[in-house]
Amino acid sequence: MATIYHQVGIQASLDDVYAAIATTEGVTRWWTTTSGNPEKGGELEFAFDGHVLQARVSDNTPGKYVEWTVGGDAGEWLDTRICFELDKKNDQVMVNFQHADWQQATRFMGHCSTKWAVFLLSLKDYLETGRGKPFPHDIHINHTDFN
Amino acid sequence: MATIYHQVGIQASLDDVYAAIATTEGVTRWWTTTSGNPEKGGELEFAFDGHVLQARVSDNTPGKYVEWTVGGDAGEWLDTRICFELDKKNDQVMVNFQHADWQQATRFMGHCSTKWAVFLLSLKDYLETGRGKPFPHDIHINHTDFN
Repeated sequence: MATIYHQVGIQASLDDVYAAIATTEGVTRWWTTTSGNPEKGGELEFAFDGHVLQARVSDNTPGKYVEWTVGGDAGEWLDTRICFELDKKNDQVMVNFQHADWQQATRFMGHCSTKWAVFLLSLKDYLETGRGKPFPHDIHINHTDFN
Repeated sequence: MATIYHQVGIQASLDDVYAAIATTEGVTRWWTTTSGNPEKGGELEFAFDGHVLQARVSDNTPGKYVEWTVGGDAGEWLDTRICFELDKKNDQVMVNFQHADWQQATRFMGHCSTKWAVFLLSLKDYLETGRGKPFPHDIHINHTDFN
Protein backbone atom coordinates (compact mmCIF):
# COMPACT_ATOMS: atom_id res chain seq x y z
CA MET A 1 0.00 0.00 0.00
CA ALA A 2 1.16 3.54 -0.72
CA THR A 3 -0.15 6.94 0.31
CA ILE A 4 -0.02 10.52 -0.98
CA TYR A 5 0.41 13.15 1.75
CA HIS A 6 -0.10 16.90 1.61
CA GLN A 7 -0.69 19.82 3.94
CA VAL A 8 -1.88 23.35 3.32
CA GLY A 9 -2.68 26.11 5.82
CA ILE A 10 -5.68 28.27 5.00
CA GLN A 11 -6.60 31.62 6.48
CA ALA A 12 -10.33 31.08 6.77
CA SER A 13 -12.75 29.94 9.45
CA LEU A 14 -12.98 26.27 10.32
CA ASP A 15 -16.63 26.35 9.24
CA ASP A 16 -15.73 27.70 5.81
CA VAL A 17 -12.90 25.20 5.25
CA TYR A 18 -15.16 22.35 6.32
CA ALA A 19 -17.96 23.55 4.01
CA ALA A 20 -15.53 23.70 1.07
CA ILE A 21 -14.79 20.00 1.55
CA ALA A 22 -18.08 18.66 2.88
CA THR A 23 -20.57 20.21 0.44
CA THR A 24 -20.96 19.57 -3.28
CA GLU A 25 -21.09 23.33 -3.93
CA GLY A 26 -17.80 23.73 -2.09
CA VAL A 27 -15.89 20.93 -3.81
CA THR A 28 -17.12 22.19 -7.17
CA ARG A 29 -15.32 25.48 -6.54
CA TRP A 30 -11.84 24.00 -6.19
CA TRP A 31 -11.70 20.40 -7.53
CA THR A 32 -14.36 19.63 -10.11
CA THR A 33 -18.13 19.64 -10.64
CA THR A 34 -19.49 17.51 -7.81
CA SER A 35 -22.96 16.11 -7.18
CA GLY A 36 -24.63 13.66 -4.82
CA ASN A 37 -25.04 13.34 -1.08
CA PRO A 38 -22.03 14.53 0.95
CA GLU A 39 -23.30 13.11 4.26
CA LYS A 40 -21.73 10.04 5.82
CA GLY A 41 -22.78 6.99 3.81
CA GLY A 42 -23.81 9.13 0.82
CA GLU A 43 -22.59 8.70 -2.75
CA LEU A 44 -20.74 11.45 -4.58
CA GLU A 45 -19.95 11.92 -8.27
CA PHE A 46 -17.03 14.01 -9.49
CA ALA A 47 -17.26 14.92 -13.19
CA PHE A 48 -14.13 15.10 -15.32
CA ASP A 49 -13.77 15.36 -19.07
CA GLY A 50 -15.28 12.15 -20.38
CA HIS A 51 -15.60 10.30 -17.12
CA VAL A 52 -17.22 10.45 -13.72
CA LEU A 53 -15.44 9.42 -10.55
CA GLN A 54 -17.67 7.80 -7.94
CA ALA A 55 -17.04 7.68 -4.22
CA ARG A 56 -18.82 6.87 -0.99
CA VAL A 57 -18.56 9.23 1.97
CA SER A 58 -16.94 6.77 4.36
CA ASP A 59 -16.50 9.31 7.15
CA ASN A 60 -17.73 12.81 7.87
CA THR A 61 -17.12 14.35 11.27
CA PRO A 62 -18.20 18.01 11.10
CA GLY A 63 -15.34 20.45 11.45
CA LYS A 64 -12.78 17.67 11.79
CA TYR A 65 -12.58 14.98 9.15
CA VAL A 66 -13.97 14.00 5.75
CA GLU A 67 -13.16 10.75 3.97
CA TRP A 68 -14.27 9.47 0.58
CA THR A 69 -13.74 5.88 -0.59
CA VAL A 70 -13.50 5.54 -4.35
CA GLY A 71 -15.68 3.00 -6.17
CA GLY A 72 -16.95 2.33 -9.69
CA ASP A 73 -14.74 2.15 -12.77
CA ALA A 74 -11.78 3.81 -11.11
CA GLY A 75 -8.65 1.93 -12.25
CA GLU A 76 -5.79 2.49 -9.80
CA TRP A 77 -8.05 4.70 -7.67
CA LEU A 78 -10.44 1.82 -6.88
CA ASP A 79 -10.86 1.37 -3.11
CA THR A 80 -8.44 4.19 -2.34
CA ARG A 81 -9.42 6.64 0.38
CA ILE A 82 -9.26 10.43 0.00
CA CYS A 83 -8.97 11.97 3.48
CA PHE A 84 -9.12 15.55 4.78
CA GLU A 85 -8.28 16.18 8.43
CA LEU A 86 -8.80 19.73 9.68
CA ASP A 87 -6.80 21.25 12.50
CA LYS A 88 -7.28 24.86 13.63
CA LYS A 89 -3.92 26.42 14.45
CA ASN A 90 -3.67 30.08 15.45
CA ASP A 91 -4.96 32.16 12.54
CA GLN A 92 -5.26 29.36 10.02
CA VAL A 93 -6.79 25.95 9.45
CA MET A 94 -4.33 23.22 8.54
CA VAL A 95 -5.72 20.72 6.04
CA ASN A 96 -3.86 17.44 6.45
CA PHE A 97 -4.61 15.49 3.30
CA GLN A 98 -4.06 11.84 2.44
CA HIS A 99 -4.92 9.80 -0.63
CA ALA A 100 -4.37 6.40 0.92
CA ASP A 101 -4.45 2.69 0.09
CA TRP A 102 -2.94 2.72 -3.40
CA GLN A 103 -2.01 -0.85 -4.30
CA GLN A 104 1.35 0.32 -5.63
CA ALA A 105 3.42 3.49 -5.83
CA THR A 106 3.18 3.87 -9.63
CA ARG A 107 4.25 6.80 -11.78
CA PHE A 108 0.57 7.61 -12.17
CA MET A 109 0.41 7.93 -8.39
CA GLY A 110 3.27 10.47 -8.60
CA HIS A 111 1.26 12.35 -11.22
CA CYS A 112 -1.81 12.33 -8.98
CA SER A 113 0.24 13.51 -5.99
CA THR A 114 1.40 16.59 -7.87
CA LYS A 115 -2.15 17.22 -9.13
CA TRP A 116 -3.52 17.01 -5.58
CA ALA A 117 -1.05 19.74 -4.56
CA VAL A 118 -2.36 21.85 -7.43
CA PHE A 119 -5.96 21.31 -6.30
CA LEU A 120 -5.20 21.93 -2.61
CA LEU A 121 -3.66 25.27 -3.61
CA SER A 122 -6.89 25.84 -5.55
CA LEU A 123 -8.83 25.10 -2.32
CA LYS A 124 -6.65 27.62 -0.49
CA ASP A 125 -7.15 30.25 -3.20
CA TYR A 126 -10.90 29.66 -3.27
CA LEU A 127 -11.17 30.24 0.48
CA GLU A 128 -8.71 33.13 0.72
CA THR A 129 -9.50 35.02 -2.48
CA GLY A 130 -12.93 33.71 -3.52
CA ARG A 131 -11.52 32.16 -6.66
CA GLY A 132 -10.29 28.58 -7.02
CA LYS A 133 -9.08 26.86 -10.17
CA PRO A 134 -11.22 23.72 -10.43
CA PHE A 135 -10.98 21.37 -13.40
CA PRO A 136 -10.72 22.24 -16.31
CA HIS A 137 -9.12 25.51 -15.19
CA ASP A 138 -6.47 23.76 -13.10
CA ILE A 139 -2.73 24.20 -13.61
CA HIS A 140 -1.43 21.56 -16.02
CA ILE A 141 1.59 19.66 -14.81
CA ASN A 142 2.51 18.11 -18.13
CA HIS A 143 1.77 18.57 -21.81
CA THR A 144 -1.29 16.35 -22.03
CA ASP A 145 -1.87 16.13 -18.30
CA PHE A 146 -1.68 12.37 -18.38
CA ASN A 147 1.26 10.33 -17.18
CA MET B 1 9.68 4.37 6.04
CA ALA B 2 7.57 6.76 3.99
CA THR B 3 8.07 8.40 0.62
CA ILE B 4 6.87 11.51 -1.20
CA TYR B 5 6.10 10.96 -4.90
CA HIS B 6 5.62 13.51 -7.68
CA GLN B 7 5.71 13.69 -11.45
CA VAL B 8 5.85 16.63 -13.84
CA GLY B 9 6.21 16.65 -17.62
CA ILE B 10 8.44 19.36 -19.05
CA GLN B 11 8.64 20.52 -22.65
CA ALA B 12 12.40 20.94 -22.88
CA SER B 13 15.32 18.85 -24.07
CA LEU B 14 16.58 16.02 -21.91
CA ASP B 15 19.95 17.83 -21.72
CA ASP B 16 18.33 20.98 -20.37
CA VAL B 17 16.20 19.15 -17.79
CA TYR B 18 19.22 17.19 -16.63
CA ALA B 19 21.31 20.37 -16.35
CA ALA B 20 18.60 22.03 -14.27
CA ILE B 21 18.89 19.23 -11.71
CA ALA B 22 22.56 18.27 -11.98
CA THR B 23 24.26 21.68 -11.83
CA THR B 24 24.35 24.18 -8.99
CA GLU B 25 23.42 27.00 -11.39
CA GLY B 26 20.38 25.00 -12.51
CA VAL B 27 19.07 24.09 -9.04
CA THR B 28 19.54 27.70 -7.93
CA ARG B 29 17.02 28.78 -10.60
CA TRP B 30 14.10 26.71 -9.32
CA TRP B 31 14.76 25.49 -5.73
CA THR B 32 17.19 27.63 -3.78
CA THR B 33 20.74 29.00 -3.89
CA THR B 34 22.93 25.94 -4.32
CA SER B 35 26.70 25.50 -4.11
CA GLY B 36 29.19 22.65 -4.02
CA ASN B 37 30.12 19.76 -6.26
CA PRO B 38 27.18 18.19 -8.11
CA GLU B 39 29.14 15.18 -9.35
CA LYS B 40 28.61 11.73 -7.86
CA GLY B 41 30.18 11.64 -4.41
CA GLY B 42 30.24 15.44 -4.20
CA GLU B 43 28.78 17.54 -1.40
CA LEU B 44 26.06 20.12 -2.03
CA GLU B 45 24.75 22.98 0.11
CA PHE B 46 21.28 24.41 -0.31
CA ALA B 47 20.81 27.79 1.39
CA PHE B 48 17.52 28.69 3.03
CA ASP B 49 16.64 31.55 5.32
CA GLY B 50 18.76 30.97 8.39
CA HIS B 51 19.93 27.47 7.63
CA VAL B 52 21.85 25.45 5.08
CA LEU B 53 20.80 21.98 4.00
CA GLN B 54 23.67 19.62 3.26
CA ALA B 55 23.54 16.60 0.98
CA ARG B 56 25.85 14.14 -0.72
CA VAL B 57 25.32 13.31 -4.40
CA SER B 58 24.69 9.61 -3.90
CA ASP B 59 23.96 8.94 -7.58
CA ASN B 60 24.31 10.86 -10.82
CA THR B 61 23.74 9.09 -14.10
CA PRO B 62 23.80 11.73 -16.87
CA GLY B 63 20.46 12.23 -18.59
CA LYS B 64 18.77 9.62 -16.41
CA TYR B 65 18.96 9.90 -12.64
CA VAL B 66 20.16 12.20 -9.88
CA GLU B 67 20.01 11.35 -6.17
CA TRP B 68 21.00 13.39 -3.13
CA THR B 69 21.27 11.91 0.38
CA VAL B 70 20.67 14.46 3.11
CA GLY B 71 23.20 14.85 5.93
CA GLY B 72 24.17 17.40 8.57
CA ASP B 73 21.73 19.02 10.97
CA ALA B 74 18.67 18.03 9.00
CA GLY B 75 16.02 16.94 11.52
CA GLU B 76 13.41 14.71 9.86
CA TRP B 77 15.28 15.04 6.55
CA LEU B 78 18.40 13.32 7.91
CA ASP B 79 19.37 10.33 5.74
CA THR B 80 16.41 10.84 3.42
CA ARG B 81 17.05 10.56 -0.32
CA ILE B 82 15.87 13.11 -2.90
CA CYS B 83 15.61 11.37 -6.28
CA PHE B 84 14.97 12.63 -9.80
CA GLU B 85 14.45 10.05 -12.55
CA LEU B 86 14.19 11.43 -16.09
CA ASP B 87 12.21 9.73 -18.84
CA LYS B 88 11.87 11.22 -22.32
CA LYS B 89 8.34 10.71 -23.62
CA ASN B 90 7.31 12.13 -27.00
CA ASP B 91 7.65 15.92 -26.81
CA GLN B 92 8.37 16.14 -23.10
CA VAL B 93 10.63 14.88 -20.36
CA MET B 94 8.88 13.27 -17.43
CA VAL B 95 10.55 13.98 -14.11
CA ASN B 96 9.66 11.18 -11.68
CA PHE B 97 10.50 12.53 -8.26
CA GLN B 98 10.81 10.82 -4.90
CA HIS B 99 11.79 12.08 -1.47
CA ALA B 100 12.34 8.69 0.13
CA ASP B 101 13.25 7.08 3.44
CA TRP B 102 11.39 9.32 5.86
CA GLN B 103 11.31 7.58 9.23
CA GLN B 104 7.63 8.41 9.63
CA ALA B 105 4.81 9.98 7.63
CA THR B 106 4.47 13.10 9.79
CA ARG B 107 2.45 16.23 9.15
CA PHE B 108 5.72 17.97 8.35
CA MET B 109 6.24 15.38 5.62
CA GLY B 110 2.82 16.35 4.21
CA HIS B 111 3.94 19.97 4.27
CA CYS B 112 7.16 19.07 2.44
CA SER B 113 5.25 17.02 -0.15
CA THR B 114 3.11 20.02 -1.07
CA LYS B 115 6.22 22.26 -1.16
CA TRP B 116 7.99 19.83 -3.49
CA ALA B 117 5.05 20.11 -5.89
CA VAL B 118 5.44 23.89 -5.76
CA PHE B 119 9.16 23.64 -6.52
CA LEU B 120 8.71 21.06 -9.29
CA LEU B 121 6.26 23.45 -10.96
CA SER B 122 8.98 26.08 -10.50
CA LEU B 123 11.42 23.72 -12.28
CA LYS B 124 8.88 23.33 -15.11
CA ASP B 125 8.37 27.09 -15.37
CA TYR B 126 12.10 27.75 -15.34
CA LEU B 127 12.67 25.36 -18.25
CA GLU B 128 9.60 26.31 -20.27
CA THR B 129 9.47 30.06 -19.69
CA GLY B 130 12.96 30.92 -18.44
CA ARG B 131 11.66 31.96 -15.06
CA GLY B 132 11.36 29.73 -12.00
CA LYS B 133 10.25 30.72 -8.53
CA PRO B 134 13.08 29.55 -6.25
CA PHE B 135 13.10 30.27 -2.51
CA PRO B 136 12.28 32.92 -1.25
CA HIS B 137 10.04 33.68 -4.24
CA ASP B 138 8.19 30.36 -3.98
CA ILE B 139 4.44 30.05 -3.51
CA HIS B 140 3.58 29.89 0.18
CA ILE B 141 1.31 27.04 1.16
CA ASN B 142 0.42 28.34 4.59
CA HIS B 143 0.59 31.54 6.57
CA THR B 144 4.05 31.14 8.03
CA ASP B 145 5.13 28.36 5.67
CA PHE B 146 5.91 26.10 8.57
CA ASN B 147 3.80 23.15 9.65
